[in-house]
Amino acid sequence: MFENREKRTELSELGEFKLIDRLTKNVANRQKSTILGIGDDAAILNFDGKQVLLSTDLLIEGIHFDMSYMPLKHLGYKAVMVNISDIAAMNGTPTQIAVGLAVSNRYSVEALEEIYAGMLLACLKHNIDLVGGDTTSSTSGLMLSITVLGEAAPKDIVRRSTAKSGDLIVVSGDLGAAYTGLLLLEREKEVFAKDPSIQPELDSYPYVLERILRPEARVDMVMRFADMDLIPTSMIDISDGLASEIMHLCEESALGCQLYEDKIPIDPQTVTVAELFNIHPVTCALNGGEDYELLFTVSQNDFEKINGQGEFYIIGHMTETGSPKSLITTSGEAIPLTAQGWDGIKKDDKA
Amino acid sequence: MFENREKRTELSELGEFKLIDRLTKNVANRQKSTILGIGDDAAILNFDGKQVLLSTDLLIEGIHFDMSYMPLKHLGYKAVMVNISDIAAMNGTPTQIAVGLAVSNRYSVEALEEIYAGMLLACLKHNIDLVGGDTTSSTSGLMLSITVLGEAAPKDIVRRSTAKSGDLIVVSGDLGAAYTGLLLLEREKEVFAKDPSIQPELDSYPYVLERILRPEARVDMVMRFADMDLIPTSMIDISDGLASEIMHLCEESALGCQLYEDKIPIDPQTVTVAELFNIHPVTCALNGGEDYELLFTVSQNDFEKINGQGEFYIIGHMTETGSPKSLITTSGEAIPLTAQGWDGIKKDDKA
Repeated sequence: MFENREKRTELSELGEFKLIDRLTKNVANRQKSTILGIGDDAAILNFDGKQVLLSTDLLIEGIHFDMSYMPLKHLGYKAVMVNISDIAAMNGTPTQIAVGLAVSNRYSVEALEEIYAGMLLACLKHNIDLVGGDTTSSTSGLMLSITVLGEAAPKDIVRRSTAKSGDLIVVSGDLGAAYTGLLLLEREKEVFAKDPSIQPELDSYPYVLERILRPEARVDMVMRFADMDLIPTSMIDISDGLASEIMHLCEESALGCQLYEDKIPIDPQTVTVAELFNIHPVTCALNGGEDYELLFTVSQNDFEKINGQGEFYIIGHMTETGSPKSLITTSGEAIPLTAQGWDGIKKDDKA
Repeated sequence: MFENREKRTELSELGEFKLIDRLTKNVANRQKSTILGIGDDAAILNFDGKQVLLSTDLLIEGIHFDMSYMPLKHLGYKAVMVNISDIAAMNGTPTQIAVGLAVSNRYSVEALEEIYAGMLLACLKHNIDLVGGDTTSSTSGLMLSITVLGEAAPKDIVRRSTAKSGDLIVVSGDLGAAYTGLLLLEREKEVFAKDPSIQPELDSYPYVLERILRPEARVDMVMRFADMDLIPTSMIDISDGLASEIMHLCEESALGCQLYEDKIPIDPQTVTVAELFNIHPVTCALNGGEDYELLFTVSQNDFEKINGQGEFYIIGHMTETGSPKSLITTSGEAIPLTAQGWDGIKKDDKA
């Protein structure tokens, strides 16, 4: 998990232009829509008759990641995955990214090359072109800004605001794992800070660590939906936690919802780690975030298409305008959902 | 120049979603190609048959701007102008931007609203839609990442790599002013740090200060070229200084060049301030940067179109592959041009 780096080239040895040349020397364009990539004032893209999707995300050191346990290659990989997840959440296909990278001189050229290697690995996996960007120094830490473009036929694009009352609420995979992985990493960091001779004990929980360090955007679902001839009625990706995301769908579609606690998919390893930290596993799913699964709604008429498919989990349904947004617990009690965004989990769940 | 701010709302009072609502409440979409703006996972854009241009730029506190003399509204305005300048440099029209904003809790909501007001003013001026973004906290300082999309008919797009030997080198306005403005601001900051009772003496040099604090992207040139039925053979915007930019055109087009010192347009105020600091005005033009004028080449066949037009300055010509990149001084001496990027002016010119 902690790479050795024998050679260190100071950023000041290269200067901006040579650094960009070095960072981008492995960039290859694969998309037919990429007319011109890196190297001019702007990239040239050509989307004939398709609609263009655009999304941008920032990853800031000390806020979104901690260099003490985030390998740089994973950071680059995750930064791209987090962004293309937004395109998948529109039922679109990611096609190009532009990368803004700000670093202090504490980082070596080799460190930045590892970040790029991670980004290009994610691009390769999803056939995405890295078509431009900006590289600059920062006064402290590392900041990654990624903008992603995607395409879709207009009829296939799925918004947040178009769910209907009675639609089934579906999730593409298990939730809460990324958050329990984060808890483990934070604990090992504290142990290591107190006694650096103690090696991290992380081997027992590979799945939850993989979920936080190396998330996968569910672009495969976009192809799966096309194969199944299924267009969700609304969709969002789970970056902030199930509670926050379902509330977005409800608010944008002006509807209520009922989620069923016992239907929320949670991996056994997530349950084990959550219990290790005395946290209810469902709390991790509702408020943990960073799972990057897709949360979507489908018409009841499409029930047969998704029923019994191992990859989909029906966890509730949308209710009429004005009705509450509720979680129905295993004991049958309806409790109101509360969104937790930015100022939520980091303060509350560590208290 | 230094605004009063009576009310201060802590970022923590609002949380992420309310903050975004508040920052984006004045956002209006004007472009026909904007199908869906802010509020979903990604914006939806539609460019039928036109080519899409994409560019991204970062502005980092302490690197690209200094909050002690950069009013926040100007910062927002400049951040947008700097980005759309890259689209103008492709002979395209900017259409949409996405904004990434990372701030520490030292900034108030009102401060961020001023930045947005500046960005929206620049958008309004050029009929650009702000269609998305990401807002997050940072551990220190303020970071703005802007991605801009633009459009152009394929035949109109101008690259850096397509200049021909013999083409005339043209610039759209005077150079070096922004750098002398920066010198003034830095000097006043030092004076103020030593004795805060001394008020800044800036009123005598409004033009050079305007050039550094409130630059204008030359999108008007794109329309002017269309009116004149002129397509430059290559083009770039001047963000890093004339020397660096002409060398980009030369290297991308595999040509040499001759620039004539006495043809480089420099405003009298720039000359005055440069001499105040014992710097040769031409050095400010060559290495200063941030003027955001367009540097382009035109075929000699188009000489009549631009000759005698007050708005264009012919400063040299491109030469054959393998010939040097030279500045011909007023005394007739040919001296080799050297590019100064990131690690150039900040170290060398202050030494």
